[in-house]
Amino acid sequence: MSSFLRFRGLIALCLALTLAAVSVPAAPVRILVVYHSESGHTETMAKSLAEGAQSVANTEAVLRSFDKVTPEDLASADGVAVGSPVHMGDVAWQVRQAMVRWSMEFGFWESRGLQNKPVAVFATGGLPSNGKELTMISLASSLLQLGMVLVTPYGSFGASATTSRPDPGVDDAEKKIAAGLGERLAQIAGKLKPNEK
Amino acid sequence: MSSFLRFRGLIALCLALTLAAVSVPAAPVRILVVYHSESGHTETMAKSLAEGAQSVANTEAVLRSFDKVTPEDLASADGVAVGSPVHMGDVAWQVRQAMVRWSMEFGFWESRGLQNKPVAVFATGGLPSNGKELTMISLASSLLQLGMVLVTPYGSFGASATTSRPDPGVDDAEKKIAAGLGERLAQIAGKLKPNEK
Amino acid sequence: MSSFLRFRGLIALCLALTLAAVSVPAAPVRILVVYHSESGHTETMAKSLAEGAQSVANTEAVLRSFDKVTPEDLASADGVAVGSPVHMGDVAWQVRQAMVRWSMEFGFWESRGLQNKPVAVFATGGLPSNGKELTMISLASSLLQLGMVLVTPYGSFGASATTSRPDPGVDDAEKKIAAGLGERLAQIAGKLKPNEK
Amino acid sequence: MSSFLRFRGLIALCLALTLAAVSVPAAPVRILVVYHSESGHTETMAKSLAEGAQSVANTEAVLRSFDKVTPEDLASADGVAVGSPVHMGDVAWQVRQAMVRWSMEFGFWESRGLQNKPVAVFATGGLPSNGKELTMISLASSLLQLGMVLVTPYGSFGASATTSRPDPGVDDAEKKIAAGLGERLAQIAGKLKPNEK
Repeated sequence: MSSFLRFRGLIALCLALTLAAVSVPAAPVRILVVYHSESGHTETMAKSLAEGAQSVANTEAVLRSFDKVTPEDLASADGVAVGSPVHMGDVAWQVRQAMVRWSMEFGFWESRGLQNKPVAVFATGGLPSNGKELTMISLASSLLQLGMVLVTPYGSFGASATTSRPDPGVDDAEKKIAAGLGERLAQIAGKLKPNEK
Repeated sequence: MSSFLRFRGLIALCLALTLAAVSVPAAPVRILVVYHSESGHTETMAKSLAEGAQSVANTEAVLRSFDKVTPEDLASADGVAVGSPVHMGDVAWQVRQAMVRWSMEFGFWESRGLQNKPVAVFATGGLPSNGKELTMISLASSLLQLGMVLVTPYGSFGASATTSRPDPGVDDAEKKIAAGLGERLAQIAGKLKPNEK
Repeated sequence: MSSFLRFRGLIALCLALTLAAVSVPAAPVRILVVYHSESGHTETMAKSLAEGAQSVANTEAVLRSFDKVTPEDLASADGVAVGSPVHMGDVAWQVRQAMVRWSMEFGFWESRGLQNKPVAVFATGGLPSNGKELTMISLASSLLQLGMVLVTPYGSFGASATTSRPDPGVDDAEKKIAAGLGERLAQIAGKLKPNEK
Repeated sequence: MSSFLRFRGLIALCLALTLAAVSVPAAPVRILVVYHSESGHTETMAKSLAEGAQSVANTEAVLRSFDKVTPEDLASADGVAVGSPVHMGDVAWQVRQAMVRWSMEFGFWESRGLQNKPVAVFATGGLPSNGKELTMISLASSLLQLGMVLVTPYGSFGASATTSRPDPGVDDAEKKIAAGLGERLAQIAGKLKPNEK
């Protein structure tokens, strides 16, 4: 009994180390959803994506428009989703401008500060096959160059919504795919988060 | 004899009409080359393209940077070439901004004023396979939406130059492809020019 | 009166020459529509495209599946449309195989036999943004390399149909776009047809 | 002393659990590199990629041509790289055929057996900007649909080699990028490997 007391410190340390090593870490997984929206459709998709991310345990999601997002928002995120409307058959110029700003002005090209973080892309456009694929590929091309890792919905390149035809706006099926992508992004972000390894 | 004199007016009219119908029209084919350039590489390609166009008989070529080109420049062109550098894996934002401006502010989406005019695309980028294809596809996607007809060099999607590796800048082989594209664009523009039909 | 009779031969010749020079040539414009279809959707689009082409005066349209089309079909066409279903996010392998066969086995790369002929592309796919754009870009990339000139519907890269959601199959709006593309292809083919110049 | 002996079993168990939880697992990370090659260039890139992967501790790399790879090869891999030559401006048909076979015949679409595994793409082509980007995007599009996660070299969409101009074949800089991609793929595969979590 007394000998147990003598070694109880060592035993407790062993148990604590074991517990620490197998337990879920306290720091939450942070998902940043960045979008450009004029009609509101891309913002609607962004919200669904953030809700999907937040449905994963220990995950926080933050929404930012491209003109508001800061270097700190990006640096502190464990996973990022970016979305753009289609303008004239491809990505909005404001979003391409942001891709250059993130790389140069924010310094992520030099710092490699986004490397190994998972990224997901989403797009909205009037017609079914009129630039949403090119928009998502454009976003992916820039963000993969920064060392990010691309995560998509099962069965497609990104989450997208056809807003003009046949039903106006973002429908429930499209919101569901966006939410599913947010959920998957959060899960992968949890696995790739550096301090978890 | 006197009867020949009486009908010589009618005969002359017939001959004149015949001649007019088979002759080459006097109006020159106008090629407009529009580019965005920061390091000068895309401008170099633009110049080669314009030279190639001017090598075709009865062709005039005009160079304009994207921030200088006017609606009249575009409306009066029989064929257009557009070029962009690659920035972060895809087209420069200034060029995507111009695609929207041409469509909306200049009104070409509504007026269909560019419809049936041939267009060619060109790009420059540091590395061989790092966004020049996406840049040319992006340009094509927007301009095809405006009803333009895409003309390319034999064997590729557009004229492009790899400017960082292994040789810095635009080399002679790349200039030659640009010139060949300008020549081909002028030839097709001659065939599609409305008042020639 | 008698003098008119004396010169009526010359006058008639002048009028005939004038008429010949301004009249539509007798040789019809030939449009070839080539497709790969398993479920029938791409064939439906092909038929609409051919109907649209035939609505243009003096135009003949021929339908061929990729496994039936001959070098002669292609060589004798004044304009070509090619269509593919989306399989796993991009063009069907049978269609990519045909692009290589046309170039090598049929010899069009060496002969340049398709150069300057207009081409249009079309695609069908289950979901709205799931490979139809990539499929049309893939077709265009190969055919532009052979010197063809790309013609699209106003407002998009090609004619496409979303076949799974929300309405199964090819709907009337999609057929109408395909027909419009066929019509436009026939018009451009008429302008670019070599013996018309 | 004797009391230490009495509790030494419990202490040893604690230490063992602690060690097990923080130590590198014994099972190696398996990287599968799959390629189609006719001239040997794509195979050269595949070998560099495999060498890069094997430079990472506890990693095994296996090379397979597309006509030899089995469902078991794919199912047992922790990360996959796929490569294709450019044929007529886009991916080889044999590779697109394989994308459909992997999904349907091998059953990975239904089984979701490739989901969450990292994938990298590579391409070889004669000219700098002539389809290598489209080839890599095509591969990525299909494999992302199967739930894979895309990993690229820093600064580009995939590893690629320009084989015709100005230097024939795959040069050292291109091999180095391929090796670096293999290394990165192995590192990400280690983080995403299911039994490591």
